[in-house]
Parts: sequence; C-alpha cells; structure tokens
Amino acid sequence: MRVVVPYAAEEPKTRLADALSPEERVEFAAAMLADVLATVRAAGREPEVLATAPVAADAPVTVDERALTPAVDAALAETDDPVAVVMADLALATPEALSRLFDASRATDPDEGADVVLAPGRGGGTNAMVVAHPEFRTDYHGASYLDHLARAREVDASVATVDSHRLATDVDERVDLAEVLVHSDGRACAWLADAGFVLSTDGGRVRAVRE
Amino acid sequence: MRVVVPYAAEEPKTRLADALSPEERVEFAAAMLADVLATVRAAGREPEVLATAPVAADAPVTVDERALTPAVDAALAETDDPVAVVMADLALATPEALSRLFDASRATDPDEGADVVLAPGRGGGTNAMVVAHPEFRTDYHGASYLDHLARAREVDASVATVDSHRLATDVDERVDLAEVLVHSDGRACAWLADAGFVLSTDGGRVRAVRE
Repeated sequence: MRVVVPYAAEEPKTRLADALSPEERVEFAAAMLADVLATVRAAGREPEVLATAPVAADAPVTVDERALTPAVDAALAETDDPVAVVMADLALATPEALSRLFDASRATDPDEGADVVLAPGRGGGTNAMVVAHPEFRTDYHGASYLDHLARAREVDASVATVDSHRLATDVDERVDLAEVLVHSDGRACAWLADAGFVLSTDGGRVRAVRE
Repeated sequence: MRVVVPYAAEEPKTRLADALSPEERVEFAAAMLADVLATVRAAGREPEVLATAPVAADAPVTVDERALTPAVDAALAETDDPVAVVMADLALATPEALSRLFDASRATDPDEGADVVLAPGRGGGTNAMVVAHPEFRTDYHGASYLDHLARAREVDASVATVDSHRLATDVDERVDLAEVLVHSDGRACAWLADAGFVLSTDGGRVRAVRE
C-alpha cells in the first residue's frame, strides 16, 4: 500500500489568516506535515509527499502543481496497488487512528476489508482514505465525504467508514487550534505553544488564544 | 451499568439562538434526546433521563435542578454500580460508537477495561463517559476532558479514551448542524430537513443553511 500525503506547499493554511501570519502559516503547516509523516511511519508505513511545489520533507516528494482532485487521481491511476491518501494537516492523528483506517481496507484484510475506506472530516470533508479499487476516483470539492460515498456506489466498490475524532479534525481554522493543544503532543502543538497559544476556557467550547 | 442522559429541559441549546427560535430549540433538543435514547437502547442498554425540569421522554426521568456537575455527581454517588453518562445532544451517536464506549469499561470487560472511559467532545468537552470507580467525580466546566483526565489520575483510576467523531460531535452551535445533515438519519436530521435546512458547499467546510 502506498501512503500519499498531499501538501499545499505555496500559501498553506489560508483559512488560518486570522490567527497566524503568512510566514507562521508556512512554519505551522510544515510542523503538521512532519507530525503526519512521523505518524504514518509509526503505523508501519512509508509515506510519500505529493506537493504543489518543491518542499523539504522527511519523505520522497513528488511535485504536481494541479489541484488536489486531479493530483490525487493521477496518483491513483499510476498504480494497481492500493493507495492511502492522508491529509497533511491531521495534527491529531495517532498510529492507532491510522491503523484503524489501514486495517479496514481490503489491502490489509482481503477477507473483511472494504474496497474504499473513508475517514470523514468535519464539515463534510474527506480527511483520509484507502482506495483498493481500480475505478474509484476522487472529488475533493464541497461535501467530498458524501460525494465519495456516491462515487463508490457508482463503481460498485464496497465502503467502510472510520469513526475517528482524530482523523475528522483537519486543522484549517482558528477553532481547530484548540484541538491541537488539547489532543496532540507533537511538533504542531509545540509550535503553537512556542507561538504563545494557550487554551482559554471562557464561554462554551475551549478556544486557543494567543498571550 | 446505569446509563444516565442529562438533559437541560429549560431553555435548551441557547448557543443555537442564531439559527433557531426558542420554540424550535425546544423541539430540536427533544428530537436529539429521542435519538440518543433510541441509540442507547439499540446498543443494548436501558437509558434514564436526568433532567433539570419535568420532561416527556421515552425513558424514566429524574429531575435535579442543579447544574450538570453536581447533578451527575449525585447520580454517581447514589450507586456502587458503574454509571455511563451520555449527553443528550449527541445526534450523530450510533450503537456502534456507544458500544465502543461501553466495551472499553471495566464494567463490561473486567480484565482489560478501564476504571474511567472518556469520549472527548470538540472544544475540550466530555461528551460521554463510563465511571466504574467509586471515587471519581466530574467537573464539566471548561476543558472538562483535561480536567477529567486529571481527576482520574488523582484517584488512581485507569483511563481509556474513545476516539470517535460521532461521540465528539455535540450539537451546540450552528456549525454543528451540518454534521447532523451529513452523518445522521434520525429524528434530529429529519427535524432540520423539515425546518428547511440544507447543506451549502460554498467556501471551505460545508455549512447548514436555511432555505
């Protein structure tokens, strides 16, 4: 099984603009990428980075300037092997959570595993998947989790879903930073702490604020 | 194992005031409660409601006017049996997700289960737990997940955490309504659809908007 980690190397994490400067967003995105690569390895797999531009990373890097959907689809098309796609901003991912993803696939479990395994993200996204079906292609625009379920039905692929808060939490918006502070102890969490972020317990949910 | 479902019967879901009228919030909260009670039963357990005021529900209702922490602590104190506490706004909960919670407890698995099982909610909350330790008490204010981890350490209770998007998603704020539309097919989802809510795919994450 290949494990591909797509990475927007240019102007990453624009939806964090209200919390971090452009330079900080580059650093924070790189910290999250490093966490994800280390977690994939800790789950016993060798990650590869699929980046929109050349980038320094502790893994082989392929550059594809295209948008996420055509770039990932090209990776799916170039091999008959199963391909896992794990987003680079899953700072909460653990080896256990990724193993649940991988183990639900036919690639790992030929008898019980599914052709397509999806880890839904908050807001209808798809944060990780394993594709072990030759005809399945992606559609990351909009409510991609629902679109991917529909795509799987179209090509008659069996589907499993991984119910994981850690995999559902892509770190895109300011509200997500609190999740990193609560649930991670990796590089991304250390970066936020160094940048002065702490948890604030005013109001309902806990928020990350900068001191 | 007792399964207690706390329910704020008066002025529920105030943080949904920007999306729903007071009367609608009462209806929607009741639909979520009904979903949770049905899901607890589908997981093979008999739920009880712990409400702040008399309320009609398809389960025995105990009224305790106090805040969540003292009301739940009183429920913990009145029995030596293990007690599960499942929030009434977990509209995405499934029997499978609740079974993962229950099965991680010493109450279900005396050999491998933990004294305290926690299902963290988004924003540092605690959306469900199973307590099988006589000294553990709750603290639902602020980052309760971290506080509950600390409490368990203080009383030397072993802890397990359930990594579930469905249990992490308490439906408190407008942004959470999209999760119900994407992931639920219960009464709460039907209520939202009847009230005119649909998914909108503008921007990053999918949002629930009213037509």
